[in-house]
Amino acid sequence: MVSAMETDSAIDATPGYAGDKAALLARLRRVEGQVRGVARMVEQDTYCIDVITQISAATRALQAVAVGLLEDHMTHCVVDAAREGDPHAKIREATEAIARLVRA
Amino acid sequence: MVSAMETDSAIDATPGYAGDKAALLARLRRVEGQVRGVARMVEQDTYCIDVITQISAATRALQAVAVGLLEDHMTHCVVDAAREGDPHAKIREATEAIARLVRA
Amino acid sequence: MVSAMETDSAIDATPGYAGDKAALLARLRRVEGQVRGVARMVEQDTYCIDVITQISAATRALQAVAVGLLEDHMTHCVVDAAREGDPHAKIREATEAIARLVRA
Amino acid sequence: MVSAMETDSAIDATPGYAGDKAALLARLRRVEGQVRGVARMVEQDTYCIDVITQISAATRALQAVAVGLLEDHMTHCVVDAAREGDPHAKIREATEAIARLVRA
Repeated sequence: MVSAMETDSAIDATPGYAGDKAALLARLRRVEGQVRGVARMVEQDTYCIDVITQISAATRALQAVAVGLLEDHMTHCVVDAAREGDPHAKIREATEAIARLVRA
Repeated sequence: MVSAMETDSAIDATPGYAGDKAALLARLRRVEGQVRGVARMVEQDTYCIDVITQISAATRALQAVAVGLLEDHMTHCVVDAAREGDPHAKIREATEAIARLVRA
Repeated sequence: MVSAMETDSAIDATPGYAGDKAALLARLRRVEGQVRGVARMVEQDTYCIDVITQISAATRALQAVAVGLLEDHMTHCVVDAAREGDPHAKIREATEAIARLVRA
Repeated sequence: MVSAMETDSAIDATPGYAGDKAALLARLRRVEGQVRGVARMVEQDTYCIDVITQISAATRALQAVAVGLLEDHMTHCVVDAAREGDPHAKIREATEAIARLVRA
């Protein structure tokens, strides 16, 4: 992963999700709890299919967080870039992120 | 979710992943750490695209765990059922789990 | 599906992919050929796993077309809306399309 | 792709989907028609988001065909191998196919 610290595009930037940081962190804590719950199921020898079902739910929750972040990115980073000049780089980054997510 | 405790098919069953439980738990702990790492990135206002990249990685790791569990399920639950009688129910469950996972 | 004809947002609009229509159509023809190739494999009793492999390839090709269309949508529809006024509706549509695609 | 003709496992094999070949071919023809429909939408300059929605539907239909083939593979190839001896290779192939499909 390229660190945000090293990318031009990120220098001094307030991230697109800044307005919603508390809600975003709450969602991530919930996903963390879901993954911990899956580990607990394994510790208790829960039936494999039931474990897989819970993994699918955690996966879906993670993907929903990512989709929300993409909306934030478009709403703030892409729109700001469009208004201030050339949004091409921001759109390219978003596209690559979508491609990774679709294939995640 | 139907609890394993309540399903006929799971009564008294050693789960398919029993032989590999420690490794499975280690993988889940790693995913939990990845999700916690994503929360930390958000706390530090990391650039949105970099956060999404890490979410994709965590998602992929979770999906890989689920695929491994499906292999365990086929190797133990489906094969045992095939040898002892009718594997239809086990295969149906696996198929539904695959469908949920593909669409996760 | 809401027809483009019925949505305000689409009235009189040149689609975002207008500049690349020939290339887009060529990609779709290729995917159509891939799906036809899968049918031919089935007609010839090809081994199931090999058929599934080709379906995965066709699926991936379709998803890549959709990701390309999302880039066109951001580059044209979202950017134009951002410059002319309120891009919120265009971003919402894109987000919902991403969510459907991720879960496709 | 490794051709079915060249793999030991497939020699002389009736594919797992043999009993359902006509229904399978009908589903694939429908997907082919869906992809052709997407091309027609592009020819008619349909709004990008509507095109993406239809691509998601075609993708989902393709994935459903693949999941059905995996069920056939388990029901026939894996079960037969389990009863006749070592199902390991068939399960490995299925697992790899699931992994490709999940990431398709």
